[in-house]
Amino acid sequence: MSYHYLLDLALILLSTKFLGIITGKFQMPRVVGSLLAGLVLGPAVLNVLSETAFLSQLSEMGVIVILFTAGMGTDLRELRGAGKAGFFVALCGVLVPMVMGTGFGFLAGRCGWLPGNTMLENVFLGTVLTATSVSITVETLRELGRLDTKVGSTILAAALIDDVLGLIALTVVASLAGEGTSLALVLVKIVLFFVFAIVASFLAIRAFRWMISHAKGKNLRRYPVLAFVICLLLAYCAEEFFGVADIIGAFVAGLIVASTPKAKYIQSKFEPLSYLLLTPVFFAGIGVKVELPSLNGQLALFSLLLLATAILSKIIGCGLGARLCGFRGMECAQVGAGMACRGEVALIVANRGLSMGVLSQAMMTPIIITVVGCAVLTPILLKLVFRGQPEAAPHESSLTDGYRAIEQLDLVSAQLLNREIQDRAERSSGEKGD
Amino acid sequence: MSYHYLLDLALILLSTKFLGIITGKFQMPRVVGSLLAGLVLGPAVLNVLSETAFLSQLSEMGVIVILFTAGMGTDLRELRGAGKAGFFVALCGVLVPMVMGTGFGFLAGRCGWLPGNTMLENVFLGTVLTATSVSITVETLRELGRLDTKVGSTILAAALIDDVLGLIALTVVASLAGEGTSLALVLVKIVLFFVFAIVASFLAIRAFRWMISHAKGKNLRRYPVLAFVICLLLAYCAEEFFGVADIIGAFVAGLIVASTPKAKYIQSKFEPLSYLLLTPVFFAGIGVKVELPSLNGQLALFSLLLLATAILSKIIGCGLGARLCGFRGMECAQVGAGMACRGEVALIVANRGLSMGVLSQAMMTPIIITVVGCAVLTPILLKLVFRGQPEAAPHESSLTDGYRAIEQLDLVSAQLLNREIQDRAERSSGEKGD
Repeated sequence: MSYHYLLDLALILLSTKFLGIITGKFQMPRVVGSLLAGLVLGPAVLNVLSETAFLSQLSEMGVIVILFTAGMGTDLRELRGAGKAGFFVALCGVLVPMVMGTGFGFLAGRCGWLPGNTMLENVFLGTVLTATSVSITVETLRELGRLDTKVGSTILAAALIDDVLGLIALTVVASLAGEGTSLALVLVKIVLFFVFAIVASFLAIRAFRWMISHAKGKNLRRYPVLAFVICLLLAYCAEEFFGVADIIGAFVAGLIVASTPKAKYIQSKFEPLSYLLLTPVFFAGIGVKVELPSLNGQLALFSLLLLATAILSKIIGCGLGARLCGFRGMECAQVGAGMACRGEVALIVANRGLSMGVLSQAMMTPIIITVVGCAVLTPILLKLVFRGQPEAAPHESSLTDGYRAIEQLDLVSAQLLNREIQDRAERSSGEKGD
Repeated sequence: MSYHYLLDLALILLSTKFLGIITGKFQMPRVVGSLLAGLVLGPAVLNVLSETAFLSQLSEMGVIVILFTAGMGTDLRELRGAGKAGFFVALCGVLVPMVMGTGFGFLAGRCGWLPGNTMLENVFLGTVLTATSVSITVETLRELGRLDTKVGSTILAAALIDDVLGLIALTVVASLAGEGTSLALVLVKIVLFFVFAIVASFLAIRAFRWMISHAKGKNLRRYPVLAFVICLLLAYCAEEFFGVADIIGAFVAGLIVASTPKAKYIQSKFEPLSYLLLTPVFFAGIGVKVELPSLNGQLALFSLLLLATAILSKIIGCGLGARLCGFRGMECAQVGAGMACRGEVALIVANRGLSMGVLSQAMMTPIIITVVGCAVLTPILLKLVFRGQPEAAPHESSLTDGYRAIEQLDLVSAQLLNREIQDRAERSSGEKGD
């Protein structure tokens, strides 16, 4: 019996948490800390952690749960209210990076920098660049006192839609990468999957309603369990019957669960599963894939150019979208800079490409450098484009409120739990005194 | 890339939950439903689920987390207040089943029923029979209105101590099973482990205090993460340096965490990790191990005799302990019947023996039948021994209160969460109205 996985997990949890807190002090998101943890533990530095079958399977499950949680956090009703500006910023912010990323891969391949490079790899590289991560922008804008402005709420709305559009792009590209399939067949299968998802959504919401009306409210555990079953089944069916990536199935399952009455409760139960086990394992697993020795001058240059492409393409794309919706001058640059950061989803898409054999292993290091680089540069960029501007009037938005509410919910429920425990203790000691 | 594990997990979660609810309706604990789920899915009936490397590793992790949670639920201060009666009932209730189980294995081996039977296997069988599971007794006594009696609180106290004594027995027996070790060396190593655990406990509690005093109370996630790291490290060190079972390390880590200020919060975060993933996988994995075709007449007889030994040994042992502490006549039988049920820990010990090669695979089916049989018979036995007796006066006990409090905590916190969400919604709509 092997028990070495215990030490592996302990090291992963300890180092991702520790470095996450450190990077947090420097205003960087926990993704950066977690990636660094994997890098430090992996062959690049200390070489105490290597990929085992168990860890890589756990990290695959982690991706499923991360996207399921992302889906649960996406309220489709809010999406509808995101407005024209949010939609156009997101659309241009997906198309331009996709095209520029593909073009960059093509040029690099032409220069002989990417041995064995294919057109599909280039398109996949473009897809990796589509997904914005908005958490760091939210932190910076809050610090600057600009979160409640028109620019701030447009960024939040666009980021929501960006997630969905980016995943649609992944669905199409990943399905195309399947062997010997035509574009028409792929599109038919994707449409069939969405029909299936709508039917599943109808059935799932009915099942929840039925359970809630028939339960005496005693045992709540059945709701998260049912939600997880829906997630796993949709992920499985997506792969098995429709050739769609399992993570898309998980995200759609999250959207379905988000529209059931118990959504917030279910979400709160998946958080510990995620941060106690699956997310750290996933990020550390990505960091372990970095091979510093292979980082020669050419790869370093490629990484820097990819980083530049990533940031410029979002600024151009999102800025263009903002311009089309009547934003002026600096505001367009502000929206663009706010959308420039990449995060979890970019890494998940890249990891997916790697395991499908579409992206080469050598591509992982530049992509990780791009994600870390974006996280470092975004706050600096944002402070630059907001410099010298008077603080705008606060702008009404339920999105910004919602973002804060979710963050504080755990804190509040912990306080309530504490109060409850104290109450009980007081009551029972009071009873004894009587 | 394989994604079949998604379907496996979905089937496990769905069937354990469904059968758990069904068995719950018949007043049986969820363990029985979960075991049945594994049995139905496994080769014994439907044969849609087989053990994969990932599932068995997950189930190993599940055992770690189950015992960690059990440790967190054991308050050492309550243990001290459990009184002489609780201690004697537990002690006799561990020794007698251990001896009778060993003797039964020895006799069965002599009759040629257990090919390849060794003395160590017999002692291990005795160890499997030591651990009481009290949840079903609590339910039945509550239904009978006898939980708040002297008998009820003695059973709860004894069950607490029984857990600890049973795990000490496992520690010694499992260490003895290590190759070529003498009893003296084993005992020295166990003592050293407990010294190590005390030092670790001192350091861990200091670390928690330091973190709590230095954190601005913003991010609470670090506490469960640190607790899990302690659990994993203690489990690893127990195996690696002291030859003690990893699950003992996890249990001790749970005891340590239980005495930190954030214990209840941490415990609440491990519950979803447990019931959403690890516990169902563990129980289903046990059920899958049952091979019905091999259940011939001889094995069936052996199973029934083992079940009888299990119940009788607890009634005799615990009854004796109760008698020594001044309980009279029927009360002794009541205490004995209340301690007769077995559960998770018996299965965990058996699984451990199997993976160490001490218990033979053929032993699993009888042990599972014993656990299920105890769960079915305990409520019947309890109703028999309490029949015709007038309801005794309620007895003061913080243990019974505590048991109920923990059960209701999730329910309460969910309600509070709901109220909080509603409050926020009302407040934000109110703000908009202003």
